[in-house]
Parts: sequence; C-alpha cells; structure tokens
Amino acid sequence: MALKARALYNFQSENKEEISIQENEELVIFSENSLDGWLQGQNSRGETGLFPASYVEILRSRSGSSYTDCSSSPAGSPRHDSFYTATPNPSISYQGSFEDDDDDDWDDWDDACTVVEEPRSAPGTNGHPSPNLQYPTAYGHHQHTGYRPKPALERQDSMSSSKRGSVVGRNLNRFSCFVRSGVEAFILGDVPLMSKIAEVYCIEMGSKGPQWRANPHPFICSVEDPTKQTKFKGIKSYISYKLTPSNINSPVYRRYKHFDWLYNRLLHKFTVISVPHLPEKQATGRFEEDFIEKRKRRLILWMDHMTSHPVLSQYEGFQHFLCCRDEKQWKLGKRRAEKDEMVGASFLLTIQIPTEHQDLQDVEDRVDTFKAFSKKMEDSVLQLTNVASELVRKHVGGFRKEFQKLGNAFQAISHSFYMDPPYSSDALNNAISHTGKTYETVGEMFAEQPNNDLFLMLDTLSLYQGLLSNFPDIIHLQKGAFAKVKESQRMSDEGRMDQEEADGIRKRCRVVGFALQAEMNHFHERRVADFKRMMQSYLKQQIIFYQRVSQQLEKTLRMYDNL
Amino acid sequence: MALKARALYNFQSENKEEISIQENEELVIFSENSLDGWLQGQNSRGETGLFPASYVEILRSRSGSSYTDCSSSPAGSPRHDSFYTATPNPSISYQGSFEDDDDDDWDDWDDACTVVEEPRSAPGTNGHPSPNLQYPTAYGHHQHTGYRPKPALERQDSMSSSKRGSVVGRNLNRFSCFVRSGVEAFILGDVPLMSKIAEVYCIEMGSKGPQWRANPHPFICSVEDPTKQTKFKGIKSYISYKLTPSNINSPVYRRYKHFDWLYNRLLHKFTVISVPHLPEKQATGRFEEDFIEKRKRRLILWMDHMTSHPVLSQYEGFQHFLCCRDEKQWKLGKRRAEKDEMVGASFLLTIQIPTEHQDLQDVEDRVDTFKAFSKKMEDSVLQLTNVASELVRKHVGGFRKEFQKLGNAFQAISHSFYMDPPYSSDALNNAISHTGKTYETVGEMFAEQPNNDLFLMLDTLSLYQGLLSNFPDIIHLQKGAFAKVKESQRMSDEGRMDQEEADGIRKRCRVVGFALQAEMNHFHERRVADFKRMMQSYLKQQIIFYQRVSQQLEKTLRMYDNL
Repeated sequence: MALKARALYNFQSENKEEISIQENEELVIFSENSLDGWLQGQNSRGETGLFPASYVEILRSRSGSSYTDCSSSPAGSPRHDSFYTATPNPSISYQGSFEDDDDDDWDDWDDACTVVEEPRSAPGTNGHPSPNLQYPTAYGHHQHTGYRPKPALERQDSMSSSKRGSVVGRNLNRFSCFVRSGVEAFILGDVPLMSKIAEVYCIEMGSKGPQWRANPHPFICSVEDPTKQTKFKGIKSYISYKLTPSNINSPVYRRYKHFDWLYNRLLHKFTVISVPHLPEKQATGRFEEDFIEKRKRRLILWMDHMTSHPVLSQYEGFQHFLCCRDEKQWKLGKRRAEKDEMVGASFLLTIQIPTEHQDLQDVEDRVDTFKAFSKKMEDSVLQLTNVASELVRKHVGGFRKEFQKLGNAFQAISHSFYMDPPYSSDALNNAISHTGKTYETVGEMFAEQPNNDLFLMLDTLSLYQGLLSNFPDIIHLQKGAFAKVKESQRMSDEGRMDQEEADGIRKRCRVVGFALQAEMNHFHERRVADFKRMMQSYLKQQIIFYQRVSQQLEKTLRMYDNL
Repeated sequence: MALKARALYNFQSENKEEISIQENEELVIFSENSLDGWLQGQNSRGETGLFPASYVEILRSRSGSSYTDCSSSPAGSPRHDSFYTATPNPSISYQGSFEDDDDDDWDDWDDACTVVEEPRSAPGTNGHPSPNLQYPTAYGHHQHTGYRPKPALERQDSMSSSKRGSVVGRNLNRFSCFVRSGVEAFILGDVPLMSKIAEVYCIEMGSKGPQWRANPHPFICSVEDPTKQTKFKGIKSYISYKLTPSNINSPVYRRYKHFDWLYNRLLHKFTVISVPHLPEKQATGRFEEDFIEKRKRRLILWMDHMTSHPVLSQYEGFQHFLCCRDEKQWKLGKRRAEKDEMVGASFLLTIQIPTEHQDLQDVEDRVDTFKAFSKKMEDSVLQLTNVASELVRKHVGGFRKEFQKLGNAFQAISHSFYMDPPYSSDALNNAISHTGKTYETVGEMFAEQPNNDLFLMLDTLSLYQGLLSNFPDIIHLQKGAFAKVKESQRMSDEGRMDQEEADGIRKRCRVVGFALQAEMNHFHERRVADFKRMMQSYLKQQIIFYQRVSQQLEKTLRMYDNL
C-alpha cells in the first residue's frame, strides 16, 4: 500500500510536525496527495512527519512517473483528508471562481460563489493557525486553499530552486510561505527584473521608523444603499452596494462578488501587506435585513482600511473597481489586473526603500516585539469579541426578559388595583400601569441597544481579527529573509559565496524588512485611530442609552407627582 | 385499629375535604389526634373526610372516656402527621413560649424562641392556604398552631353551643375560624357583656363607607440602631432596637421577642382586624449584617402600619410596649395585657358603630368585590415579589458578571497595547484601561443597586403579603355572621324564633360588617399611600442609578477627548 519516495534535497525539520530528510534518502509516504505542499511519511530513521512534497520524487513501480508531475493525478480525485481543519460543507457546492471561470460577464457571476464559508481557524487556537499546516499562502489565503491548490507558483519556485542547486544551503529553507510566496526566490535574486516597472511604492523614514509614503491623491469612499437586484426575470437575486469615491464623486454599483474578486487580486499581488479581510460569507439568510446591514457596516470599515493604506489605495485594480462604469472597460480592466506580472515576489521589486542603515538585530528585535504584541492583541481582541457577543445575547435575551417581566408584574399590580372601584385610585393605577409599560419599553431598548453600540464594536474587532491573523505569515517572511542573510554572510565569510552575492541578498532583505516595518507602522497608526473611535463611539452610545432609560423613568415618575 | 366515634351534632360539609355527619351517626376515625380542631374519618355512608372534632364523641371500648377529654391524651404523644404542610424542622427546638413560660423576666427570653420558622403556605398555592385545614385562627396564627393546639377556647365555645342546643341550626355552622374565633358566639349573643368596658373603638361613616375613627392622639415611632447585646458573660447574644415614639420622644429598647410577644397579643385580641405580620424569623445568620438590616427595614414598615391603624395604635399593650422603661412595670403591664378579657369575641363588644342603615346584600356585594380584589392583589403581589427577587439575583450575579467581564476585556486590550512601546499611545491605553475599570465599577453598582431599590420594594410587598393573607379569614367571619342573620330571619319568619332574638343577631352582625368595612377602608387607604411611595421610591432610585452609570461613563469618555 505505502508508496516509496526519494529525497531530492536535504530538508531540516524545524518543529515536531516535520521530519528531516537527506538527499537521496529513501522515504515511505502515506499518500501521494500533498497537503498544502507537504507530504506525510516516514524517513529511514523511522521518524514520521511532514516534509515538502517538492523535495522528493515519488518512486512508482509501474509507471515510474514521479510525484512532481502533479498534473498526472486524475482530475477530480479527492484532495481532502483529515488534515484539513476546514473541510468544505458537502451541502454547499463551490460554483464558479474567478480563476476557473472564464465567464467574467459584468454581473453573471452567481452569488452562490460567495456562499462557501471561509476556512477559519478554530476558536480554541486563538486564531493562530498551526504554523506549517495552515498558514495561508500570501496569495492563496481566502482562495479556499485546499479546495483548489495552486501548484503553479510552488512548482515554478521549486524548479528555480532546484536549478540553483544548493548554493545557499537548501537544508535551512523550509517549504513554508516564505518559499511558496516567492519571497525566498526574491531574496536569492531569482526574481527577474522586468523591463518596465510602472508602479513604485516608496518607503520613507518617519519619526517612528520606516513608513509607506502617503498616497499623493488621498481619497475616501462611501459604501451605501445595499439594494436587492434581480435578473433572469427574478430567478437570481443579489445585493448591490453604491460606492462613491470622494475623488470622483460619482457612484459605481458593486456586488459582494466584485469585492471578492478584488480581494483575491490583493492577496495575489501584495506580499508583506496585511490585506483587510472581507466581511464573512454566509450560506443562508444572505437577503435578511440584519445580515445586509452587518455586511454593509463591515464593508464600510473594509473600504476605510483600503483607502487609508498608501499602497493598497493606489493599486490599479482597486481604482478600476472604484471607478469603472462601463461593461466592456470592466472586462478589460479585469483582464489587465489578472495579467499583472508585478505580483507576489515581483511586487517586492516595486518597493523603493530609504538609504538609512538599519542594524539587522535591531530590526529583528523590533519585529519580535511586534510579534509578541500582535499575538497578545489578537488574544485580547478575541476576548472582547466573545464578551461583546455574549452581551449582545444577554441584551436581546436575558436583559429584555427581566425588564419585560418587571413591566408585566407592575401591570398586574395595576390591574388588581382596578378591581375594587370605590377604593381604586385611578391616577395611581394609571401611573403604575404606565410604569409597567415603561419597563417593557426599557426591555425593548435593551434589546435594540446592540444596534447602537455592540455591533459597531464587533465590526471593528472583526476587522482587526482579520488584520492580525495576517501578521504571523508576514513576520514569517521576514524571518526567512533574515535567516538567508545570516546564512549567506556565513558562507561569504567561509569563502563559499561571493561577497557581491551576499550583499545582494542583504540588500533585498532590507526591502522586506523596511516593508514589514512600514506595514507595522501603518497598522499601529490605524489601530490607535480605530480603537479610539471604537471606544468613544461605544461610550457615547452607552451614555445616550442610560440617559434615555433614566429619561423614560423620569417621565413615568412625574405621573406620581399629583396623586 | 380504627376508633369509633358518635356524632353529637349535625354537620354539613361545605367542600370536598369535609364530610357531612348526622347527630348520633356512628363514625370511624383514623386517629384520635385532631388537626387544628378537625378529625379525619368515615361516616356511615362510607364517605371519607374531615369533620369537627368537638362535634363527635370518641367511643372507647375499655376506658369509655370520650375524645372531648383531650387532656387525657398522654403528654408528649406525637401530634404531627402528614397533614401538616409545615412540619417543624427537627433540628430546631421550640424553646419557651409566652403562654407556657412563666419566666417573663425583662430580657431572659431566649432568642431561640424566635427561630422556629413560621408555617407558611407553599408558593404554588399563591399564598392561599386551603380554607379548612390551614386557615390560621384569628388568635392562633403565628402561635405555631399545630405545635401546641389550644383547645381551651374551642371547648368553651363548643360547650356553649351544645348548651344552646339547636335553637339556631347547628348544621349550618362550620367548625371554622368563624366558630373558633368566638364570632359565632358573639353573633348568637353568647358573649357576655362585662360590667365595665374601658375601651371603645368607634366606627363612623366616611365618604367611602364605614371607617375607624382616627386615633385622637396620633403618633409615629422610629425603629433604629439595631445593636448586638450580650448577656451571661457573652454566652447569649441578641439584637436590640431603639424605638422612639413621637409622642414621648424618649426611646425604649426592644428585642425581636418583645415584638413577638406584642404580636401574639394583637392576634389574640383583635378579631376582624388585619394585623401586620412581623418580619420573617430565620434559624441561622440572625446576627449577619444583611439580615439585621432587612429586619430593621421591615420592622419600620411594621411599626408604620401599627401606628397608622386607629385601633391597633391605641391598644394598651402596644402603648406599654412603646413606653415602658421599668423592669417591674414591664412585668405588670405584660400580665395586665395577658389578662385582658376584651379579646377575640369580646373585643367586638368594644366596637361602636354608626346608626346608618346598610342593606345586607349591599354589604355582602361590597365584601365579595373586596374578596376578589384581595385575591387578585395577592396574586400580583406574589408575581412582583418573584420578579423582584429574581432581579436581585440577576443584579448580584449575571449583571455584575457581564459588566465585569466587559471591564476585564477592555483592560486586556489596554494591556496588549502597552506591549509595543514605540507605537504605544499611552493616553489611549490609559483611557481604555480606565474604561475597563469603569465597567467593573458599573458591575459593582449593579450588584449594590438592590440595596437602594429592590429590597425596599420587596419589604413593602412582604408586608402586603402578610396583610392580604389575613383577609380570607376575616371575610370568612363576616360570611358566617351574615349566614346567621339569614338563618335567624328565616326562623323568625317561620315563627321558630323571637323577632327580638333575630334582631339582636342582625344588630351584632352589623358590628362585624361595619368593622370589616372599616378595615377594608383602612387597608385601601394605606395601600394607595404605600404603593405610591413604593413606586416613587423605586423609580427615583432607578433614575439616580442610571444617571450615575451615565455619569461614570461620561467621566471616562472625557479621557478620550485630547488623544
């Protein structure tokens, strides 16, 4: 049953899930289907674990075809097994996707393409996916990795690596997002400089270190009026949102699937940038008012982050998304964005960094601090999310119920008082009955209040959950780059590498370091502004709420004045 | 095993628990121990149920002694069986009681005499005891009926009845509180007029019908400073309360057992008056601050009702309780009160009524309306009590917890923000941390709030639960009296009774009717005032509470102003 394989390169395990393999070592593999680029098997020392699929060649007794001929695996063969933490719901079919679907008609994508739940890390893991198995690739996250693995870039990268041989020890590399994103190739100088680079994104030194140069044409964009549209004589329905960029002031109308297309472009293109997640997809109830309202609020926050970002806001695909009003132009712009070559590793070529010297260790320390911070912030955001969600449930359930029960009890008192007319004090009875109604109203106010405060808080927290979940990957890229620098310097010191090549690696590593620091800087800037706004808004709404409650009660109290 | 008995008089059952018996009928009785004056057994028609113990004579084969010789039952024989809904807790001994205990030393009553839980009706019955089995007798309520049945008055009454023979058909009488309270005897003219009646309580016609004439020397009385006292070198402890009547303005100090003595005197004396119940007894935790505070609050309300009542406030025993400062005088006054002859049925002799004619049927209708009202009010008071008690639990538990969790979550956010110092905005972090503390404070405010509002509401509701639970009995007295009038009129019409005797019955019945109406009137007057005050106080405290919450939040919000 078990397949054999031969290691093509050395691979050094870096955690307990992985096993080390030596070039030419014979391995047993448990399944020829790779998981996110990894195979599970046993090495000659009897250790069981994961190793990169592209580091081995599967030995087939009959056909002799190696694993690396991935396209030979039968189409439609099952690619899911128990390793996927997010197995797709079998009742939800995945219909259409941008890459597979050539039908990019203006609005002929079925909204059903948005109903697949995003694979999300289980709550127990605090949002941190296991580093090796579930790290989303820089381009593959949110593209339902696992449903349609895209070996193309992996292959290309591993090919280029294999061509290079082991000039810079492959055994230090991990077949992780660092490699798969192409950042390793970039660092090693394997990403070719195209003839023309139209885009340039500058990083400059600010008071708190490297920062993205601001968009010279800053703008904001409103998201309004979610409206239900139908086509095919009402058979298909979708919601369109009116987007009005401030620099154009003329609206376009977009569906969620257009956002989704853009989002996937962003993931594909922008290495080292924390792209804000789109609001959650939902299989059912997509046309329910509450869901539409929630999606709108979250699209507004998403849009704010897009327009606030000096790099993302200038992206041509984003501009196209915000401005294009013509169906033919839309198609053309879409194709152009999809054919963009300055994506992934190549995007790093478009970054211009300042000449200031930064000590390698200082930057690593900076990044480590940020890493610890972001982990802690992720935990606390999750904690607040849980508390706020529970509070929403209490407001709608327990709190409302308690006040309604109090209201009913007051009304029962009042009703009993009406039962002995000669002695019934009508004014008092009315006042008590009114008090009962007031507490029923207060109960409803409690139930409604999350619309004014907690939901808005949860929206911001959700955005930050997304942004924070991107950072482990991005930090991993930087870590890989620094490891490369150290290794190349060592090799240079040992005379096994030209100093020029080592300098090139160091120079390219600086690009990644500057970009990450600029991104950290931008994150903090936004964080301070967003959390200030979130807290202020929450407190203001809470104050208004408690004041309204006491005003209601005051009005009721006055009914007792002249009894 | 089963004992035989012979019916001495006719008895007509009036509900399914009772069975009818005919004079001279032979009966089987299941136990010779009467329950609250009732025996359980089987009549000659095979019906099983209850009948009055004093209506039968137990036939003993050997001794031949009849049941009516109650004192012959062996001392200490068990008197409790499954009929008691409130069986005494075996771990709580009943030590000392006013009647049995000749030791009426100034403060030598053990507080333990107050630890027996009052028999209370089960919550499921809405506070309405089953009419026959558990109606407290007008004098026996709160004297632990069932633990020490007092056959004396029953005997006296049934004796006088037997002496009268069946001049007014005994078969219409029920051996209920109407008979046992002596009101039947009063109506029938069997209660002798004593030579001197020092006390007179007048009823006059007011705008809403009969009312007690106001106390010519009205006063109020404060209850303050519950203080723990010890005696026997600290072995025994008790709480003393400082009482200051406004008409004397010099305090006396009283323990709960003194209140209890007074209360029992009131029950003994005041037929047809709804005596406010004392605050609940409690077996454990009597010296805990919360319990002492609660008892004090409820004694204040009790005292207010006592001083507000035109009849109760003038009672000599009450005056003695409020004013006596001397140990010897205390004993003398206590004896005097206990030897008071104008109690129970005789108390009715002290009532002077106006001459206005009241139609019998009108009064009955009035009383029926009040009966329906009081039943409904009892239900609604119970409902509000349950809701308010549940709210207390929510305030101290759920509400506090939710706000504390929110506070903790904000603090966690703030802590995480401190973790990346170069980008940490201290002012924002402080503000968020302070917001966290504010919500913890708000949680504590929720937990404390019942002290300001719900407890006071529950105190008033508890007082009214007591007052309302008295009325079924009192109404029953009136019903019995009216039945007597109707019967005597019929007998007079049939020539079987002197018109003079029938007129006497009607005249005495008017006393009961006027007294009940005056009591209803007084109840309504107090109810309107008390519920107005209760609602106003609750609303005021609620308004203050919500205003304080919003002020706390406003103070916190200002911390975000200059970030």
